[in-house]
Formats: sequence, structure tokens, C-alpha cells
Amino acid sequence: MTQNYVRADGRAIDQLREVKITRGWSEHAEGSTLIEFGNTRVLCTASFESDVPRWLRGNGTGWVTAEYAMLPRATNTRNSRESVKGKIGGRTHEISRLIGRSLRAVVDTKALGENMITLDCDVLQADGGTRTAAITGAFVALVDAVEWARGEGHISKKAEILTDSVAAISVGVLPDGTAVLDLPYGEDATAGTDMNVVVTGSGDFVEVQGTAEGVPFSRDQLNELLDLAVIGTGQLAEIQREALSK
Amino acid sequence: MTQNYVRADGRAIDQLREVKITRGWSEHAEGSTLIEFGNTRVLCTASFESDVPRWLRGNGTGWVTAEYAMLPRATNTRNSRESVKGKIGGRTHEISRLIGRSLRAVVDTKALGENMITLDCDVLQADGGTRTAAITGAFVALVDAVEWARGEGHISKKAEILTDSVAAISVGVLPDGTAVLDLPYGEDATAGTDMNVVVTGSGDFVEVQGTAEGVPFSRDQLNELLDLAVIGTGQLAEIQREALSK
Amino acid sequence: MTQNYVRADGRAIDQLREVKITRGWSEHAEGSTLIEFGNTRVLCTASFESDVPRWLRGNGTGWVTAEYAMLPRATNTRNSRESVKGKIGGRTHEISRLIGRSLRAVVDTKALGENMITLDCDVLQADGGTRTAAITGAFVALVDAVEWARGEGHISKKAEILTDSVAAISVGVLPDGTAVLDLPYGEDATAGTDMNVVVTGSGDFVEVQGTAEGVPFSRDQLNELLDLAVIGTGQLAEIQREALSK
Amino acid sequence: MTQNYVRADGRAIDQLREVKITRGWSEHAEGSTLIEFGNTRVLCTASFESDVPRWLRGNGTGWVTAEYAMLPRATNTRNSRESVKGKIGGRTHEISRLIGRSLRAVVDTKALGENMITLDCDVLQADGGTRTAAITGAFVALVDAVEWARGEGHISKKAEILTDSVAAISVGVLPDGTAVLDLPYGEDATAGTDMNVVVTGSGDFVEVQGTAEGVPFSRDQLNELLDLAVIGTGQLAEIQREALSK
Amino acid sequence: MTQNYVRADGRAIDQLREVKITRGWSEHAEGSTLIEFGNTRVLCTASFESDVPRWLRGNGTGWVTAEYAMLPRATNTRNSRESVKGKIGGRTHEISRLIGRSLRAVVDTKALGENMITLDCDVLQADGGTRTAAITGAFVALVDAVEWARGEGHISKKAEILTDSVAAISVGVLPDGTAVLDLPYGEDATAGTDMNVVVTGSGDFVEVQGTAEGVPFSRDQLNELLDLAVIGTGQLAEIQREALSK
Amino acid sequence: MTQNYVRADGRAIDQLREVKITRGWSEHAEGSTLIEFGNTRVLCTASFESDVPRWLRGNGTGWVTAEYAMLPRATNTRNSRESVKGKIGGRTHEISRLIGRSLRAVVDTKALGENMITLDCDVLQADGGTRTAAITGAFVALVDAVEWARGEGHISKKAEILTDSVAAISVGVLPDGTAVLDLPYGEDATAGTDMNVVVTGSGDFVEVQGTAEGVPFSRDQLNELLDLAVIGTGQLAEIQREALSK
Repeated sequence: MTQNYVRADGRAIDQLREVKITRGWSEHAEGSTLIEFGNTRVLCTASFESDVPRWLRGNGTGWVTAEYAMLPRATNTRNSRESVKGKIGGRTHEISRLIGRSLRAVVDTKALGENMITLDCDVLQADGGTRTAAITGAFVALVDAVEWARGEGHISKKAEILTDSVAAISVGVLPDGTAVLDLPYGEDATAGTDMNVVVTGSGDFVEVQGTAEGVPFSRDQLNELLDLAVIGTGQLAEIQREALSK
Repeated sequence: MTQNYVRADGRAIDQLREVKITRGWSEHAEGSTLIEFGNTRVLCTASFESDVPRWLRGNGTGWVTAEYAMLPRATNTRNSRESVKGKIGGRTHEISRLIGRSLRAVVDTKALGENMITLDCDVLQADGGTRTAAITGAFVALVDAVEWARGEGHISKKAEILTDSVAAISVGVLPDGTAVLDLPYGEDATAGTDMNVVVTGSGDFVEVQGTAEGVPFSRDQLNELLDLAVIGTGQLAEIQREALSK
Repeated sequence: MTQNYVRADGRAIDQLREVKITRGWSEHAEGSTLIEFGNTRVLCTASFESDVPRWLRGNGTGWVTAEYAMLPRATNTRNSRESVKGKIGGRTHEISRLIGRSLRAVVDTKALGENMITLDCDVLQADGGTRTAAITGAFVALVDAVEWARGEGHISKKAEILTDSVAAISVGVLPDGTAVLDLPYGEDATAGTDMNVVVTGSGDFVEVQGTAEGVPFSRDQLNELLDLAVIGTGQLAEIQREALSK
Repeated sequence: MTQNYVRADGRAIDQLREVKITRGWSEHAEGSTLIEFGNTRVLCTASFESDVPRWLRGNGTGWVTAEYAMLPRATNTRNSRESVKGKIGGRTHEISRLIGRSLRAVVDTKALGENMITLDCDVLQADGGTRTAAITGAFVALVDAVEWARGEGHISKKAEILTDSVAAISVGVLPDGTAVLDLPYGEDATAGTDMNVVVTGSGDFVEVQGTAEGVPFSRDQLNELLDLAVIGTGQLAEIQREALSK
Repeated sequence: MTQNYVRADGRAIDQLREVKITRGWSEHAEGSTLIEFGNTRVLCTASFESDVPRWLRGNGTGWVTAEYAMLPRATNTRNSRESVKGKIGGRTHEISRLIGRSLRAVVDTKALGENMITLDCDVLQADGGTRTAAITGAFVALVDAVEWARGEGHISKKAEILTDSVAAISVGVLPDGTAVLDLPYGEDATAGTDMNVVVTGSGDFVEVQGTAEGVPFSRDQLNELLDLAVIGTGQLAEIQREALSK
Repeated sequence: MTQNYVRADGRAIDQLREVKITRGWSEHAEGSTLIEFGNTRVLCTASFESDVPRWLRGNGTGWVTAEYAMLPRATNTRNSRESVKGKIGGRTHEISRLIGRSLRAVVDTKALGENMITLDCDVLQADGGTRTAAITGAFVALVDAVEWARGEGHISKKAEILTDSVAAISVGVLPDGTAVLDLPYGEDATAGTDMNVVVTGSGDFVEVQGTAEGVPFSRDQLNELLDLAVIGTGQLAEIQREALSK
């Protein structure tokens, strides 16, 4: 593997696709972001509620949860709606839970008090990396919802709700053995190993989910993939900071 | 009723909100439109398939159908996802069926052959009139999908699939008795009578759905509302033509 | 269009089928009606409950709601039960909502107090016009349930719960362009335009739902259909009065 | 136990309620019966189809199945619809299966050929014994559907489809230890033991389902109950014969 | 019928398969039993909860309920999971209800106080008689849960919760007319009549459920089957006593 | 961290709980294993079918899939059945998918031909590590099912279906920062980081799923955890080999 390897879309192996974050895309939500990783486009809204799920009431702690979904024609061929099928698929469940866990990792739910923030991540267009874009965009929407709640007096002025930032990226091993960062659909579909890594702004790991789709991967490959992920999430943390500074 | 009446948003009683149609918003769909009626924003995608539902097979005729849905935070307070609830609500069913019928009214399904076009209308942001925006935008996406299919050879060059254009608008009676065109959420919530009217490019009616939410309406009020609807849909037909001419 | 036009069943174009209303068909319900429009036979029961749905509690206002359903063999070929399919279809949802709205239009829910009346409209035999028969019959069952509640002391003696009567009829345009009143299944299946109109005893409109199944309809045809509907609902109001006077 | 015991409704302990069978109540079904056991009223329709469920195809044998349901206000207080709840309850399942098995016990499915008859038993009004009325009425509807199919040539002229008649009745032990026949709701609700017995025209047993709701029952009581059931089903067989002879 | 008849597995017609009861199979449940009737293997757990279903609250009485299920590969060919199908089948419902009723017949729910015991009967391996093994094993788990609750002080020391023991067995008529006790799958599949009988320790009947799968059965056959069932459940009561004495 | 650290159950930090594998626990399945990791007890059955899911037909390749579930009282407090709730939860979906992917990683589906093997992993008793026990046990059942199919001639004698063995283990970081192997429920509930690692017999990775429940973890901790996982899965591979050699 060398840095000279050229990918189908011309990127270097450790290069992110173009990332765009549009804050406040939605009029109604307390926080909202349209995030784009190349052609992947995810609308993340953060809904603040002065209540918590029943099982948490009376504990004095809050909750952050997430729901992920795809529009039926976000993908190349149309998928049936899960509402029409009457049940949520395993993949959707898995990703919703991943997003929720990832955000809670940087939230002090004690400090949040008995309030709940729901992150809805709806994929408007998919081209690989929808879950990582969702986590990265949802964090920005979450920050805005927390600030809104502070402004409205639902949260005390000084409460430190967020302990760090969080972002996510995919990494994978192409059929020829090359490890690459931020896979679009074309690369993802052929990758032998696929890994999603969630990393805090300070560089610690929140989630590492690596899967060998074909050939199992060695410890060396795992290390190579983690190196790439740390590079990518570092850049995403920077992009998040910029978006939030506007 | 006089033309001098001023509405909350400053519009005349027979004035549409600003309408924007962005064609080709989605990379993947055979036809797609992001349509905006003021703050109402609906993504309409048209998916072409060389097949028909089982009950139609072997008849030589095609089918056009629609599915309407709202993102959970398209509205002012968050709604639970129908996929999570495990069933589709009555309102969603009703609107999906309305959109499908409205479009089929201008489609020659015989000419379409055994092909199916599915219109997905997903409300990204809601501010009244989502079903009328959906019908108006879906027609444009439908035109693009038909042209795509012609280009790909799925439909013969000369087949006249579309017999007319179709657009829809809401009209209603405000509490003070004033009949108005194109109601945003604020007006819709207080309107005594609410009517959705679907009209072809040549000015004939496809659907008239009027409902007295409070006080029943007289034949005169009905006529007044129909007059406004004909004005509004006439303008929408013009806006559709412009969008399609680009 | 002339009054000499003869329909398949020998009726004039503005003539209702034979309408029969049997009050008190059910032993258990607070109000009940078996209503027949020709061969269409709908059992309407009104169930009174001294409670309201959760979202209304504490407002001091009541609620009237309806559920429509068909027995599996009410129709010419057997339909699967919605309970077996595990979900309610769009058509059922649509009609249930229509019946509920139609009845609420003549109910003063403030005067009703925190009480709820549920109208169950079960089609025992179908031959066109089931939703209009349901609305017309449900009104009679509603009156009986209100009187029952008054008798039991759940509603004060003087409260004016019902502000008017309400009835509904179908009208449509046959393939040859003739507009007709009260379509049996045979006419309904071929009608180009199909309209259901809900009208109060004083002749105002509660719902106008017109649909072009094939060719869109002109403003003139719309007017012609509304004229017929006003004639039909006027006669139904008279039949309701007679039934209630016994 | 003595024959002088007087029940709440004045009947002798071994006396049926008034039984009425109205054949051809429904216009559409191939066979139909409105059966009444006192205030219990069940509409039974038999739907004939020239096809069998997938798992039977190619065997040359037919199928008879049943579905039981109750209208929401068939009972004293309203029950939620199973279609609205999205699932069928255990009691409904149990009774549907019982009716199907009971009828199949007198059907030669080989002789029926690859045809299916579905018995829909919808309780319009309930006052105890709905399942036994359903079986008794469904048999009559079944006979009519078989004759219809013979008339239409779906079944050969000479095929002996039905090997016997079948009827059912409830028996039970009242709190004072008296065994009684054909329990209305009032008796059923307090009975210590409740038994439903399905018997052929020739007096053999198809189903015996006895349940101790409170105190377990002795072998003697069981025998007493079976004696009553044989009396009751004998009379029902006679009533069925009469109804079918008209 | 003679006692010399030899069955496929060598048993006499009135002989049980080998019955094994392993108490305390599960670490977590308040009572648990692995019961085996030959190759039929059912895990019964009893879960004690200091609460009752909503409809019972405030009555001062408790509740005992049961849920029956089969592992997908408990049978010879794999069955789809009911959780995957999204609904519980009629057979499962029927058996769950039977087990619950059978146990409640020997429980004094007043003495139990506002406590609930749930019996989960999961068939790990099926070879006929799963419902009867479930009832027989669940009784033993129930006893242990009651004793546990007494030890923990949830139930008073002297309360007599259980009024008797209860056990169940299947009996049936083989194609040659022989009545036999405790049918394994091979016999069950061919039996003309199949009966499940639930009997208390003192020999009274709780449930008698006999079904003619093919030819209806006579009163004599019914008596013969009941005789066998009384023999079998008598032996099971003895085996339960032994298991509980350890 | 030192090797002298003593855990609640007395194990060393890199020591597995006692692992027992009972092959052939089920009579009916083509392969079956009862696997125990300490008190965690999972029944794994492998069902062989000479068919593939519809979407694979005609490709000449086979499929291996898995379904994971827990008995309601496998845990310390009773969980509602997913069949009763009518839907499968996110956790169940996630684990079923993980088991399926893990096994497919060592299966040559081309060599398998158009056959399918379904692994059902039912947790009879849970004490942490149920998914890892399931993967480890399912592999053994899979081997037996493959050999069965070979014996029956469904698979050719020489086809190399399995390319390697596969086993899984959990590792985690305790609150005091100690990394440990194979966490029982007590440790799992308090662990800050929880990781499940699936490793082939040759030591390559199939899945790495690490989650920070509380504090994010560093690259060093990640490495430490991976080291432990490699030790544990190496021992499990040895235990699998032994079990299969009997």
C-alpha cells in the first residue's frame, strides 16, 4: 500500500470525500443539520423534550436517543418503506442504536436533567457511509439543541452537558488489499472488510465495528484501518468545530 | 370578501405562497423534484419499474401509485415514526391514495404498457398544504421519469403517456368567513372549512375534497372556494410548465 | 340529461333506492340502527362511554368517533378480514374518518361534556353507497344514544348536543355522461366520476368528496351532481325524521 | 337434579332457547344463514372457491375452514376491533379452529375435489353460546354452498360431500350444582363448569370441550352434562333438517 | 381392546412413557422444572411478581397465567419463529390458555393476594404430548415459586394457595380402534380421536378436550378414553409428589 | 494491570469460564449443541434444507443464516416474549445478524451448493456472553449438519464447505481500568468498555465490536483487549476441536 494509490473517484486512500454541514436546515427542530459526505446526504434533526422515557423518570438524569431511516428512493433501486412493511429491519435497528450510543458517549446525562433529546437521522440520498455521516451530523444538531434548551432555560446556564465532540468514519479493505478511508457505495460493495469507527474530539474510541465480509482480516490490517479512521475523524472534528463557530 | 383583505403573511386572498420547483434533486431516481410552497418542502421521487403489481399482470396496462410520508420532525412537534408504530395511520393512507388517483387521472395506463411508476412524496418540512404540494411536485417528477423511460427504450418514442398536467391547491374559509387560497399551517388550523382541489392543466376537476371542520358551508361558499382553486391551480400549471421547460 | 332517462333498476336519475331504517336492532347498544339503501345493509351501533380519549381529558369537551368495517362476505367475492391481515386498509381508514367528521359536524362537543360516543358501522351486505348509508344510519343511532344518556343522567336534561341532523348520498356520472343519484354497485363500478356528499338537515354541506375515476369533470357537471345530492339528502333527512318520530 | 328446576328465563334444565334459522340472509354468498339461539344472533356465510390453500394443491382433496368474529358491540360493553388492535385474540383463534374442525368432521374432502369452502361466522349479537350457534348455523350454510356448487357443475352430481349433519350446544353446571342445557350469558358467567359439545346427526361426538372455571367436576357430573348435550344436539339436528327442507 | 396389545414403542395401552422431572433447572426463576415425557422435553419456569395485571388491581386477588412456545427446531422439521412472523398462532394461543386455566383450577387466587405467577412452558424437544407435559411440569414449578414467595415473605406463612395438585395426559384412539394412553408423535399423527385430559390429584376433571380428527367417536369410546386418562394422571400425581418430596 | 488481579468469581483476567459443549442435544436437528460458558447456556441447532432463499435461487450458491432468541426467564427478571410483543427488538436483530455473518465467514457458500443451513441459538439461561457462546456453539452444530448432509448425499463427498473454524469471546474494561476476558453478567453490567471479538481458528478477525458504555477507550486499551480476545478464542478453538473429535 502506498499513498500514491488512486481510487475510482480520484481521492487518496486517506482522504475524506467533500464534507458539507448546513446548520438550521429545518425551521421546526431545536437543532438541525443537513450533512453531506460526497453524494451521501443525511438530514439530522434534534428534538428537545422536557420529559424522559418512563423507565428513567424520577432519576434526575436525561436521555439521548436516535432513530435512523432511509427514504425509499435514497438508494439506487427503490426499497419498500418500513412503515408499509409494518416492521423495522435489523439494519435500521442496528444503526439507530449505534447513533444513540455514540452520542450518549459524549453527553453527561446527569447534567442534562430530566430532559430528552431525540436525534432523527433521515438519509435523503445514500452513497455509502450513511451511518457515519449521521453520527457526525447529529452531533452538530445536538449541540444546537442543547444551546436552544439553555437559551429557553430548560437547562441551567453553566451545566456542562457535552463532555467532548464525536464523529464517525468508515474504513475498509479493497479487494486488492488496500486500506482506504470513507468508502462510497461502489467501494463499500466490494470491500472485503468494512469498519465503522466512532471517535471523540480528543481521539479516544467510542465504537469500533469491523466486519470481514469475505476474507478475515489480520491484526496488522486492523491497525492500518484504525490509523486511517483516526486521521478521518480528526478532520471531521475540525469540520464540526468550524460549522459550529459560524 | 374584498381583494383588500390582508392575511397574516401579507398575501392577497387569491395569492399563492412562493412556489419553487427544483428538478433532479435526487441522483438516483428516474425523476425527482424538491417542491416548496412557502415553508412547506416536499421531496418527490419517481421510480420506474418494468413490471406491474401482480393483479395487473398480463393486461398490457401499466400503473402509477404514490406513497406519502412525513419525516418525524417535519412538524412543529415531533411525531412518532409510522415504521416504529408498526402501522400506517389513516391520514397517511388517505393522502397516498389521493396522490395516486390524481396522477392516474392524467396518465394513459394503456399507453404506459406493463410498467409501473411509484411516486414517493416525503415531507421534509411541513407548513400546510403538504398534499397539494406533493401532487404538484409529483407530476413534474412523473414527467421526468416518463422521459427517462422513453430515452431508455422502455416506452415507445411516440406513446402519449400523459394526457394533461395536474396540480393541486388548498382553499379554505377563515373564522371571519373570508375564503382564501393556499393555507399555511396557521390558517389551516383555524379554518372552518378546508378544501383540497386537484385540477388538470385544461381546468377540469380531478378531485374536490371539502370538509367543514366547524360550521357547515353553503353552496355560495363552495362556489367561492372553487373559484379560488381554479385561479391557484392555473398558476401552478404555469409554474410546472416553466420548470419543465428548463 | 333528461328526467326520462331510465336506469338499470328502473329508477329516475334523481330517485333514491328504497331506504329502510330499523331502530333498536341491537339489544346491547345505547343506540342502534339497521339501515338499508336497496340491497346495501349497514348495522350502526352507538356506544356511550363516560370518558374521553386521553388527549381530550380535562378539557370538559366530549368526542364522537366512528369505525367502519365490512363483513368478509358482504361483497360479491370474499375479502380477507383486516383482523387476519393484521392491519386496516386505506379505504377503511378513510371511510371511518369521514363518518366521524360528518357526525361531529352536528355535535356540540362542549355540550356533550367529557363523554364519548363511538359509532360502529358494519356493512352486512354491500351494493354501493355503504359509506353514505353508514352516515345516514349512524346519525339515527347517535340520536338514540344521546337520548339514552340523557335518560340515565349522563347528560343534563337541557343540553343541546345535536345542532342539526346529517345525511349523506352518492352521486356520479355514468359513462354516457348522465348524472345520477344513489349509485348501486353496478353503476358505481362504471361511473366516470363518483361523489359522496354529506349535507345537514338545513341543507348546508359538511363534506364534498368528488373523484374523477376516468375523465376529469367540468364545473357544470360538478354543479349538476351537487344539485342531485341536495335533492337526495333532503329526502334522507325526512326519512330520518320519520324514523325518529316513531 | 330434577326436571322441576326453574331457570332465570323459565326454561327447563334440558330445554333449548328458541332457535331460528333464516336461510339465504345474504345475497352474495353461496350459502348463508342467520341463526338465532334466543338473543344470540350469528350470521354464517359459506364462500365457495375453486381453489385450495397452497399446502393442499395437487392432492386432489378440498378444504373447509372457518373464521369466527364478533362485531364490537355484539356484547354488553364494546370490545375493541381485532383489526384495530392488529392481532387476533386467543379466544377468536380457538373458536375459529373449533368451527373448522367440527365441519370437516362431516365433510369428505376427497369427494369435494380441489375446492375450498370458507365459513364466516360473525356474531351480530351475543348472549352466550355463540360458538355453538355458529357451528349449527354454519352447517346449514355449508349444505347450501355445496348444493350451489353442484348446480354450477363445480362438484359432480353424485359426489357425496357431506357424510352426516353436525350441530353443537353448550351445557354447564350452575353454582348450585344443577346441570343445564344451552346457557345464555347470565348463566354462563356464573357456571362452575362449562362444556361445549359437538355431535353429528347420528349422535356421535366430534368435540367435547369441558372446562372447570371454578371447582373441578366429577365423572358423574361429566356424564350428566353429556346426556344433556345429546338431547340438545338431537333437537338441533331436527331443526336443521326442517330448515333445509324448505 | 385387550391389555396384550403392543404399541410401536412396546408400551402397554395404559402405560405412560418414562417421565422425568428435574427441579431447579434454571438458576434465575423462582421455580423451574425440566420435564420429560419420553422424548418430549419442556422447560417450565415460574416467575413470581408482586403485582397483578391492571384489570385485577385493587381486588386483593392474585393471578396465575401461562405462555407456551416451541423452539423452532423442537420438531422434526423447522418451524418459523412466531416472533419473526410477528404474530402468535392459534395453536399456541389455545395451549397457553389451557395451561393457565388448568393451573388456576388448583390455585386460591384470593389467598395468593395481589401477586402474579407466570408459567413459561418452552418446548425444547417435541414428541407428542407437549401440552400435557407442560401442565404437569408447570405445576411443580408453581409449587416451588409459591414456597419461594412464602420464604421471602411475599405470601403469609399459613396461606393455603394450592388447593390440590394438577396433571394432564393425552389419550387417543388408534386407527384400529384401540384406545391408548400418552401418545408420542407417531401415534398422535394417525389417531382418529385425540383427547387431552387435565385431572386434579383427587381425581376430578379440570379439562376434557376431545377431538375427532377423522371418524366421530361414540359414548363408549369416550368412556374408555376417560378411564385411561384417570389412570395416567393418577400416576403423574404420584410422580409429582415424589419430585416435590426431594 | 497485573496477572494477579482477582475477579469476583476467582478467575484470572485472561481466564475463560468453564466451557462445556454437549453435541447432539436435540434428537431432531441435523446438528445441535448445548454450549455452556459458566452459567450461560445456549442451545444451538443447525437445520439443513435443500433450498435457498428466493433471492439466491439459480445462483448455485448456498446460504447460512442464524436466529438468536432468549427464553423469557433466561434472565434474572422475566422479559416479555417478542412473539407476544409482535416484533423483534433491535438487540435480537443485531445478534442474529452477527451470528450469521460470523459463520458465513468460514463457509464456502459456492461449495455448499443451493442448500441452506439455519442456526437457531436459543438462550436457555443467561449470564453474560450469550452471543459469543452462541457463535462458538453454533459452529459445532454447523459442522455436524454439514457432515450429516454429506452422509445423506446432499453435499458431495469432497466438497470443502468449511474453510476454518470460528469462535467468539467478550472482553471488557472494568471500572478500575482492568481489562478482562469472558465477562459474566455482573462484570458486563459495570464494564466501561465492552467488546465482542470473533476470531477464526487461524487467528484472523471476523468481527470486532467494541463499545464504550461510559468513558471512551484509548488505542492502548483497545490493543490490550484484542490481546485477551486472541488468547480466549484460541482456547475456544481448541475446545471446539476436542468436542468434534469425540
